[in-house]
Amino acid sequence: MTGIITTGEKRLILVSGRAHPELAQAVGKELNTEVLPTTAYDFANGEIYVRFNESVRGCDAFVIQSHTDPINQWVMEQLIMIDALKRASAKRITVVAPFYPYARQDKKHLGREPISARLMADLFKTAGADRLMSVDLHAAQAQGFFDGPVDHLWAMPVLVDYVRSRVDVSNVAVVSPDAGRIRVAEKWANKLGGAPLAFIHKTRDTTRPNVAVANRVVGDVEGRECVLVDDLIDTGGTIAEAVKVLLASGAKDVIVVATHGVLSDPATQRLSECGAREVVVTNTLPISPAKQFDKLTVLSIAPLLARAIREVFDDGSVTSLFDGAS
Amino acid sequence: MTGIITTGEKRLILVSGRAHPELAQAVGKELNTEVLPTTAYDFANGEIYVRFNESVRGCDAFVIQSHTDPINQWVMEQLIMIDALKRASAKRITVVAPFYPYARQDKKHLGREPISARLMADLFKTAGADRLMSVDLHAAQAQGFFDGPVDHLWAMPVLVDYVRSRVDVSNVAVVSPDAGRIRVAEKWANKLGGAPLAFIHKTRDTTRPNVAVANRVVGDVEGRECVLVDDLIDTGGTIAEAVKVLLASGAKDVIVVATHGVLSDPATQRLSECGAREVVVTNTLPISPAKQFDKLTVLSIAPLLARAIREVFDDGSVTSLFDGAS
Amino acid sequence: MTGIITTGEKRLILVSGRAHPELAQAVGKELNTEVLPTTAYDFANGEIYVRFNESVRGCDAFVIQSHTDPINQWVMEQLIMIDALKRASAKRITVVAPFYPYARQDKKHLGREPISARLMADLFKTAGADRLMSVDLHAAQAQGFFDGPVDHLWAMPVLVDYVRSRVDVSNVAVVSPDAGRIRVAEKWANKLGGAPLAFIHKTRDTTRPNVAVANRVVGDVEGRECVLVDDLIDTGGTIAEAVKVLLASGAKDVIVVATHGVLSDPATQRLSECGAREVVVTNTLPISPAKQFDKLTVLSIAPLLARAIREVFDDGSVTSLFDGAS
Amino acid sequence: MTGIITTGEKRLILVSGRAHPELAQAVGKELNTEVLPTTAYDFANGEIYVRFNESVRGCDAFVIQSHTDPINQWVMEQLIMIDALKRASAKRITVVAPFYPYARQDKKHLGREPISARLMADLFKTAGADRLMSVDLHAAQAQGFFDGPVDHLWAMPVLVDYVRSRVDVSNVAVVSPDAGRIRVAEKWANKLGGAPLAFIHKTRDTTRPNVAVANRVVGDVEGRECVLVDDLIDTGGTIAEAVKVLLASGAKDVIVVATHGVLSDPATQRLSECGAREVVVTNTLPISPAKQFDKLTVLSIAPLLARAIREVFDDGSVTSLFDGAS
Amino acid sequence: MTGIITTGEKRLILVSGRAHPELAQAVGKELNTEVLPTTAYDFANGEIYVRFNESVRGCDAFVIQSHTDPINQWVMEQLIMIDALKRASAKRITVVAPFYPYARQDKKHLGREPISARLMADLFKTAGADRLMSVDLHAAQAQGFFDGPVDHLWAMPVLVDYVRSRVDVSNVAVVSPDAGRIRVAEKWANKLGGAPLAFIHKTRDTTRPNVAVANRVVGDVEGRECVLVDDLIDTGGTIAEAVKVLLASGAKDVIVVATHGVLSDPATQRLSECGAREVVVTNTLPISPAKQFDKLTVLSIAPLLARAIREVFDDGSVTSLFDGAS
Amino acid sequence: MTGIITTGEKRLILVSGRAHPELAQAVGKELNTEVLPTTAYDFANGEIYVRFNESVRGCDAFVIQSHTDPINQWVMEQLIMIDALKRASAKRITVVAPFYPYARQDKKHLGREPISARLMADLFKTAGADRLMSVDLHAAQAQGFFDGPVDHLWAMPVLVDYVRSRVDVSNVAVVSPDAGRIRVAEKWANKLGGAPLAFIHKTRDTTRPNVAVANRVVGDVEGRECVLVDDLIDTGGTIAEAVKVLLASGAKDVIVVATHGVLSDPATQRLSECGAREVVVTNTLPISPAKQFDKLTVLSIAPLLARAIREVFDDGSVTSLFDGAS
Repeated sequence: MTGIITTGEKRLILVSGRAHPELAQAVGKELNTEVLPTTAYDFANGEIYVRFNESVRGCDAFVIQSHTDPINQWVMEQLIMIDALKRASAKRITVVAPFYPYARQDKKHLGREPISARLMADLFKTAGADRLMSVDLHAAQAQGFFDGPVDHLWAMPVLVDYVRSRVDVSNVAVVSPDAGRIRVAEKWANKLGGAPLAFIHKTRDTTRPNVAVANRVVGDVEGRECVLVDDLIDTGGTIAEAVKVLLASGAKDVIVVATHGVLSDPATQRLSECGAREVVVTNTLPISPAKQFDKLTVLSIAPLLARAIREVFDDGSVTSLFDGAS
Repeated sequence: MTGIITTGEKRLILVSGRAHPELAQAVGKELNTEVLPTTAYDFANGEIYVRFNESVRGCDAFVIQSHTDPINQWVMEQLIMIDALKRASAKRITVVAPFYPYARQDKKHLGREPISARLMADLFKTAGADRLMSVDLHAAQAQGFFDGPVDHLWAMPVLVDYVRSRVDVSNVAVVSPDAGRIRVAEKWANKLGGAPLAFIHKTRDTTRPNVAVANRVVGDVEGRECVLVDDLIDTGGTIAEAVKVLLASGAKDVIVVATHGVLSDPATQRLSECGAREVVVTNTLPISPAKQFDKLTVLSIAPLLARAIREVFDDGSVTSLFDGAS
Repeated sequence: MTGIITTGEKRLILVSGRAHPELAQAVGKELNTEVLPTTAYDFANGEIYVRFNESVRGCDAFVIQSHTDPINQWVMEQLIMIDALKRASAKRITVVAPFYPYARQDKKHLGREPISARLMADLFKTAGADRLMSVDLHAAQAQGFFDGPVDHLWAMPVLVDYVRSRVDVSNVAVVSPDAGRIRVAEKWANKLGGAPLAFIHKTRDTTRPNVAVANRVVGDVEGRECVLVDDLIDTGGTIAEAVKVLLASGAKDVIVVATHGVLSDPATQRLSECGAREVVVTNTLPISPAKQFDKLTVLSIAPLLARAIREVFDDGSVTSLFDGAS
Repeated sequence: MTGIITTGEKRLILVSGRAHPELAQAVGKELNTEVLPTTAYDFANGEIYVRFNESVRGCDAFVIQSHTDPINQWVMEQLIMIDALKRASAKRITVVAPFYPYARQDKKHLGREPISARLMADLFKTAGADRLMSVDLHAAQAQGFFDGPVDHLWAMPVLVDYVRSRVDVSNVAVVSPDAGRIRVAEKWANKLGGAPLAFIHKTRDTTRPNVAVANRVVGDVEGRECVLVDDLIDTGGTIAEAVKVLLASGAKDVIVVATHGVLSDPATQRLSECGAREVVVTNTLPISPAKQFDKLTVLSIAPLLARAIREVFDDGSVTSLFDGAS
Repeated sequence: MTGIITTGEKRLILVSGRAHPELAQAVGKELNTEVLPTTAYDFANGEIYVRFNESVRGCDAFVIQSHTDPINQWVMEQLIMIDALKRASAKRITVVAPFYPYARQDKKHLGREPISARLMADLFKTAGADRLMSVDLHAAQAQGFFDGPVDHLWAMPVLVDYVRSRVDVSNVAVVSPDAGRIRVAEKWANKLGGAPLAFIHKTRDTTRPNVAVANRVVGDVEGRECVLVDDLIDTGGTIAEAVKVLLASGAKDVIVVATHGVLSDPATQRLSECGAREVVVTNTLPISPAKQFDKLTVLSIAPLLARAIREVFDDGSVTSLFDGAS
Repeated sequence: MTGIITTGEKRLILVSGRAHPELAQAVGKELNTEVLPTTAYDFANGEIYVRFNESVRGCDAFVIQSHTDPINQWVMEQLIMIDALKRASAKRITVVAPFYPYARQDKKHLGREPISARLMADLFKTAGADRLMSVDLHAAQAQGFFDGPVDHLWAMPVLVDYVRSRVDVSNVAVVSPDAGRIRVAEKWANKLGGAPLAFIHKTRDTTRPNVAVANRVVGDVEGRECVLVDDLIDTGGTIAEAVKVLLASGAKDVIVVATHGVLSDPATQRLSECGAREVVVTNTLPISPAKQFDKLTVLSIAPLLARAIREVFDDGSVTSLFDGAS
């Protein structure tokens, strides 16, 4: 038979955008490899230039970007990196977007709106992505936006482990900041051994016509350590309000927990002044020094990402990392 | 200049699957046109045969199917009809699926599951569909599964109008059967002029270790006419249980309202025996005589569909029909 | 150079739908492996649920389904399984459809018909299939419907070997039940060492105006053992009629041979009463006990499928299995 | 409401490749329009250059090409014309290929062959074709190769009308040149009022071991005018042989009829010398003077194409032109 | 025949991004229509929100965006607008990008670079764009990056008309700032009645080993009014240098002309100080007050865009606007 | 865990079209393997038949074709070979087109032209190509036409090495035959150690109204050995003219160098008579004996192709071969 025969090999490479290089480096450290040397800068008119300094032919490439502000800049950079990998013959390209961009625009609330979360999935696909990895999507349905495998990681184990060390589990209540996030709170309650559940209910008080809206705690929080959980904290308004209402309702104290610390202005001020004992997030997004404050704890998501990347590369199956594992 | 010039015209046609021909006929009546004469039957081995008895060249075709059991049969028939329209030169093809098939499989709860709701969107697209029309999707994110325009209709106005005529609005409470559907109930409460809101909470009662789960009414329902709302009723277990808990909690009586009457066995028995004063659904799915019972009211969705189809055909904009209009 | 390097490995898995699990198990036995443990059931409203109980990351997956009645149910189940495999990162997905669904709807006989055989190919592709394996397609052109590799297997060697042991080859005639299948009969005649060829001709008898159609044997069958061949037997009408005509024309006896035993009602009755000595089919489709009868012989297609699957997995080339090998 | 509103108009244009401009002009004459003025020539190295001399924005373009030798040249020219139309904003592009290129390569006879007929369909689609029109496809399944509407025209009415004027229908026999084309002959027999049917059977004569193959007439042709029908005549070998066998079997005389006159060398010599009274084809392919001979009759396909094009443009439905109409 | 028939109408709408609303308004004024009322803003974390305030069903939409810094923000906004139009059933969507983003990254200069200009074309397509309109692409080959019609407009007539009024054509020389742009200069020379041509040549002076690069004027400029032409001016370095060399070589004076005034820092300083008599650009990109200076003339591109949009909407053909017309 | 596990292997195969089999054989020799045995011929009507005589399952296939006249024939043959490879389960298919077909039609010069170079890229993709390898594209932008990796090889090192051995580098001038190819000449000048640069300028001489065009040498060539460089020589008119002008301008002698020797009539005559000392091309295209002449030197491109193919197969990175390496 004609031809040349050799044995196949696989090579994993880690590519990083410029939004949060520390995270990619931390992931590389966990994996015992360096981030791929890359040249990336902006031209005078804002266009991005990217070039990889090493061959990527035949590689299994993981492209990490943190979608913080200026978020469109970082999305475009990641798309351009994917394009360069595709054209340079990478074998498989996985988008690693710990915080999925435009995750909250996942449906039309009004007519003539975009569904930007779906658009992002399509843009990644068009640029050349084969798979997508993300942490704690705003709605799990967004997995269905990408036409290919999605590794949906859960930060909850990382967060729960930490919170367990900070509270008296026998006297805890899990609280959701609004009606829409109760299901996440339920999972937390189960993880914490069947803790009582509560949430803040924003109602139109029909008995007091001049007061349009009232926040009410539903569930028993008096005297308890409250764990207030959400998927992300953006400007912090809802969370800070919830903390105040909980304390006013007799909570012993409040610890706020969220996966994604977006922390747009004036989140830092609101959270540091709201009365919470501690605010816990992960570093799926960079927390600049200006955003940090005394009571803020930032847990590293790098070990989780590193394990998931290794599993994907090895075609392995530590399902405890992935979506749906409880 | 060479060539032949004529003025363009548009022709709307209504095509119907065999699952629920009465609905298509009712829509046609509203539109003042007949359903397209079509030959459709099953071969001995179950394969479906379809042929249109009139030309469909250049038409704006709306293909109505009701996704009741046997649901896979009806999905396949609709796909085959779309294929036949495409190959016969229809200009534009809109899937009308009042009850979106596999709507509840819209994300992976566990690893290695399909996302069948996305798969359905892709199958419709592949067969040749240009657009999709549906009523009250289980999760609005499913709009993003289809790569094209989706007309997401709301049955709520139809249902609210009817319910208003059946209750004393000043003494009503809107109730959600579980925590996950509270947002729908909130919309109802607003529509009914700021009615109080309540819901059934399924909790692990930590104070009574041997009793795993308890259903508890959260909110004030005593002495009130309760409007128990959901998007669909399948086997009726959750709803029947909710009615009983409401009555046990002092509700004056209960009216159950849902858009989609799936009514799989033993829904009819459960609903007729649960104590509800009335159960209201629409005919997005056919309600066979065997499924009907005394207290069941079936409202027609045909006028809503007809108006939406006409709007789409005319490139008009009655946004009150469509998604996001409140 | 940065990165992590390992050696690639390949893993074959066998996935089975619920239509005919015995066939998949028989294939697995031939391959010396188990069928992948899978959870699959129907919801109350007919929707199918599927989940794989083991990791399938990076696997070379073969998804076997037998497209028997209710055929749309089984097509949809296979599509859902493919979707689940794709989203769970299977590396390559091969549809194994021993009896290709809707194979007979491979062209438009009249205007405004679908081409459902092409539609099936597109649906498999859309769900995520990379390749397709089937046995004895109704028209070989259907290979061109799938945009990718098609392994078109031939059951003829299996059937010929058996028939040789059942007839006196020196006194045999090969018969086609109608003009359209003569080419298959020609191949059989060659395989049986140049046996005489005959077929049943359905003519409009112009000499007898009141008798619309007459079946006539063309070719010499008197005193011979007739091998009546076709690709599939559905309701058995044409075949049973052919047997009677052959016997009436002096055939010594008749053995009926076909790859696919669809055997829709009233095939069993017709075939058992038509006078044939034996009816031979393979188990590309399940033959339920109710369909079986004394003179029916069912040969196993599992060894053929197993060898083909192994060849595909190994990138080997036993061309005697595949299309075009004579 | 903002915007500018005008009434839509449609413009039909006829574009012609260089293979057979007379056919396009004849079609234009039937339609009462000119062929679009076009510049097309070959560069010195064989590359084709095309430019349209008039605007084609928003047009409904029909691109006629006759796929005669050098067939690859003409396919490529048609693809380039389609590309130019697409980039110049034609609204809809229909490929008119009266003789479908590579129609006979519609399946794999042996492993590792292409399916070139499917490839052609995909190339047309890629270049920008929306629809396809062809006459008498070699296998009707090829309609399923194109992902879009296919107008499959039948030349039979044109041919039958002519033949009726040339024979005594009460004394005619319809003959197929081999077993594989009997179905076409059956349709002719029906069209000619239930004429007797016969065909030439190529058998391995088992009684005379040294004579490998014998051509035998099956059916009664003695004393009859034979109408020998096929879809195309390429080198004419099979047809000429059939004519001789028919005459040797006592046929009164033979008239040969086929849609496509490929007439590759040495068809002209074979046909003119084989003894047929007349050979009838259409001009789906150009018949150069060198290919013509005394007994050859060429019927024009232009009126059929013109009517079909007009119907497609008008979204009409003269189904008697199209596939499946009998 | 069943169905409803109406006459088709077309509606043109003008949609504008936020990068340069004045340009869209000017285009609207030329067209005698308003820009579509649109809500667009940034969320706190930088994500963009867009909604159209009027129905866009069935419209022929032109989405104008000026790709100035922050360029990735504006690309993403345009993509999101296209997605919203697609999902709201616009009939046809044309991207109007007077300055094509990433136009200069149109090939790989080194290995492992992206081809970002192609990526942009693919992103527009994925979001839902049907066609693309741009002015003076950096390389005309970029038209081939978009899979669909591209209207490539030329600003040259606008610029030439102005320049003619500012110079003594009989004493002019057209100059290219480097070897790569000579072809554009040749077109200018022809338009100005066969003016002499010159350019600046950057050579490695092999006679003076220590001086790496020297700028040399090739062609006769002494005593002449020089028209220095380029497609765009970014930081102005090359242009300012060229002006100085021209003046040093005896040019009477220099007028700089370019289509796109990117004018990144420190272009304004360089250009105002380089000695040019006048710098002429169009407003394909916004020229903020900070970028303006005494000698800068900004011509409006709006009439050209308006005429082209109207032609596209009307399916007309003023080819003098479009590519290739000289 | 269920399944069968083996280690992956890779097999490279070399497939050759019929346009220039010697080149493929030379590449095979460099790689130490045979070209895949293949059956390929033309049917009487010009259709191409292809079949591979060995299994290609799972192979990494490189399909070499030389796009010489009749160029459309060879493009189609290569497409058909790719289709056959795809359907026979090749794992990866790389088009090797040393001279890219239709490379010069890479943009619209006038309205209503095709962009045939983009069309070729799309046709290759549609047939099943995963990657593309070519030498010295006419415009490097054409890399962006193919949606996938492109290996753009440079023949310059091969040519420069040879030329260095034929000239006195210290007395050389590099000349471009027109303004549009100066950039290539610049690279040559750098490669030859900073040689002086010149080019032929075709101007409209405004001082002599009756003489429309004059060719003028820009730069100093007197007494120098001129290296006249271009990417391809087609009919040789421009080149022959340039040689004459150079000699008339006092050049010592001229050596013509180009990668692609298209050499359409009357190139051989023109080049042999123009006065050039030597004409150097590579064998990217076959040079038939009739095209050859005394002063023509043909260098082999096979070693370059072989090294590149080996690199791609091995996922290696000898970037000196590929685009952008200087």
